[in-house]
Amino acid sequence: MNERVVALSGGVGGAKLVDGLSRALPPDALTVIVNTGDDFEHLGLAISPDIDSVVYALAGLSDPVRGWGRRDETWNFMAALSQLGGPDWFRIGDADLAMHVERSARLSRGESLSAVTARICAALGVGARVLPMSDDRVRTRLRTDEGWLEFQEYFVGRQCRPRVSEIAYEGASSARAQPDVLDALREQGLRAVVICPSNPFLSVEPILAIPELRAALQNAGAPVVAVTPIVGGQAIKGPAAKMMRELGIEVASASVAARYAGLVDVFVADSSDPQPDPIAGMRIVRTQSVMRTEEDRRALAESVLAFADAARGASG
Amino acid sequence: MNERVVALSGGVGGAKLVDGLSRALPPDALTVIVNTGDDFEHLGLAISPDIDSVVYALAGLSDPVRGWGRRDETWNFMAALSQLGGPDWFRIGDADLAMHVERSARLSRGESLSAVTARICAALGVGARVLPMSDDRVRTRLRTDEGWLEFQEYFVGRQCRPRVSEIAYEGASSARAQPDVLDALREQGLRAVVICPSNPFLSVEPILAIPELRAALQNAGAPVVAVTPIVGGQAIKGPAAKMMRELGIEVASASVAARYAGLVDVFVADSSDPQPDPIAGMRIVRTQSVMRTEEDRRALAESVLAFADAARGASG
Repeated sequence: MNERVVALSGGVGGAKLVDGLSRALPPDALTVIVNTGDDFEHLGLAISPDIDSVVYALAGLSDPVRGWGRRDETWNFMAALSQLGGPDWFRIGDADLAMHVERSARLSRGESLSAVTARICAALGVGARVLPMSDDRVRTRLRTDEGWLEFQEYFVGRQCRPRVSEIAYEGASSARAQPDVLDALREQGLRAVVICPSNPFLSVEPILAIPELRAALQNAGAPVVAVTPIVGGQAIKGPAAKMMRELGIEVASASVAARYAGLVDVFVADSSDPQPDPIAGMRIVRTQSVMRTEEDRRALAESVLAFADAARGASG
Repeated sequence: MNERVVALSGGVGGAKLVDGLSRALPPDALTVIVNTGDDFEHLGLAISPDIDSVVYALAGLSDPVRGWGRRDETWNFMAALSQLGGPDWFRIGDADLAMHVERSARLSRGESLSAVTARICAALGVGARVLPMSDDRVRTRLRTDEGWLEFQEYFVGRQCRPRVSEIAYEGASSARAQPDVLDALREQGLRAVVICPSNPFLSVEPILAIPELRAALQNAGAPVVAVTPIVGGQAIKGPAAKMMRELGIEVASASVAARYAGLVDVFVADSSDPQPDPIAGMRIVRTQSVMRTEEDRRALAESVLAFADAARGASG
């Protein structure tokens, strides 16, 4: 076993555990596979919200209060854009905009999303490797009581108000996994794969919807540990609980665990919740999983790694 | 004769007289034909520096100290872009960036530069009509002792340091004039055409290099009045004097007047300079032409209009 760990993450919630893992591991031991189903084109710019959340978290640039975007942000671009009659429903801070402009310029010159992301991480001194799940286009869409909506139209434009009845990951079934993603999951001696406490429908399942990525995860030699995004019958952040209700799924960590059956070796529920019922082939453990402070992030990361190591010991 | 006036302008210097004309005329009487030879693509954005200078001047948004860009500007985008390793040789303010992003997004959806400019002017409450000289691509290039350079590469990137031996307006000979430009110049009863005190090589001659625009100017019924950008053997702003020396042209308003022979009815030199030698077919007059205050702008505009009216009276 080496010290390498692969994490699957969406945006804000997942990024917190990614940050904790980066604090608990040697600088180059962490690879993060990030959802790109939220990506979209806006104002002619290529926007990758989950990649940005992960990169900002790892670079120590996340805004601690707002929950998205950069700390110490200013908003003069948005004010001027509104004044020009431009679309202002999707808010972009002045410094955050540099990420979208630089990425868009490089993509339009033919660089891949993974190459652009690597370059940005290097510039920001991020030691972990941040990989988009795919360099191909995958787009999460939601069937709602207002019809099919693009992800950002639902999430930001309509603030998750429409009732969701179906979720589709357009392009996922034909998308190629980013090649380094597959190499990372297939690595001999990999210590753990961690599924971060991200929204299962909007952040984790788009990643799992890429067939070769799902297969690589199923065949990974390392223990796979998932952390619940549901605590006390609520989502820590975002619309996961609301969507579960609308889809007729009980809002409980056990429901999330059930969705990961066959993929996950250890499921981590919160210690404040009752012990979920057993699921075949999966250990279900509990710990303090809510991350309020930097110390919480690191402590949860260390617990998750300990659960992975224990699972390896038990099976091996 | 009606009250309509057409001005030809480049960026900063020209924009000051444009502002003066807008103060001296009824709100809808002014049409400005703006150089687009300085336009370029940077960071995937379509940047039109002279249009922006004119629009900001007319909207009361110009920075009075810096001489370009918007007042009350912030620079967090540039700081973040530098941090990401992006190109920072061309500085873009946070609010100014909204102009480039909104324009680029609309151009990429198939709108013309003139349509985008009209929309932006309406949003900013600009009463004057601001027209790019052409919706086709024209690019000023300079042959220097460092080889051929793109305009912005020379102007911003190399800060006008290379020695210029030749200037080319790529695309101008086949560019169509923006149609409203031709209508404005051909209008019956037009009061005046004003060539603003912009750099002749970099701002005015790119406009005149479009054959149908030059022809329309030559055939305009209105008096054509040009204002010198050279006072006391120096350019008010920018590299005009340096370029004249490098091109073997005496740095004097008379040299500029000579370049406009056959096109201009009245040439306005500065009252601090000696009266230039006569040029056939052109009156040369003098007035206080340096614009330090808003009052200077309006006073020069009124002088220019008076010279035009006098020229009409003399010829008609």
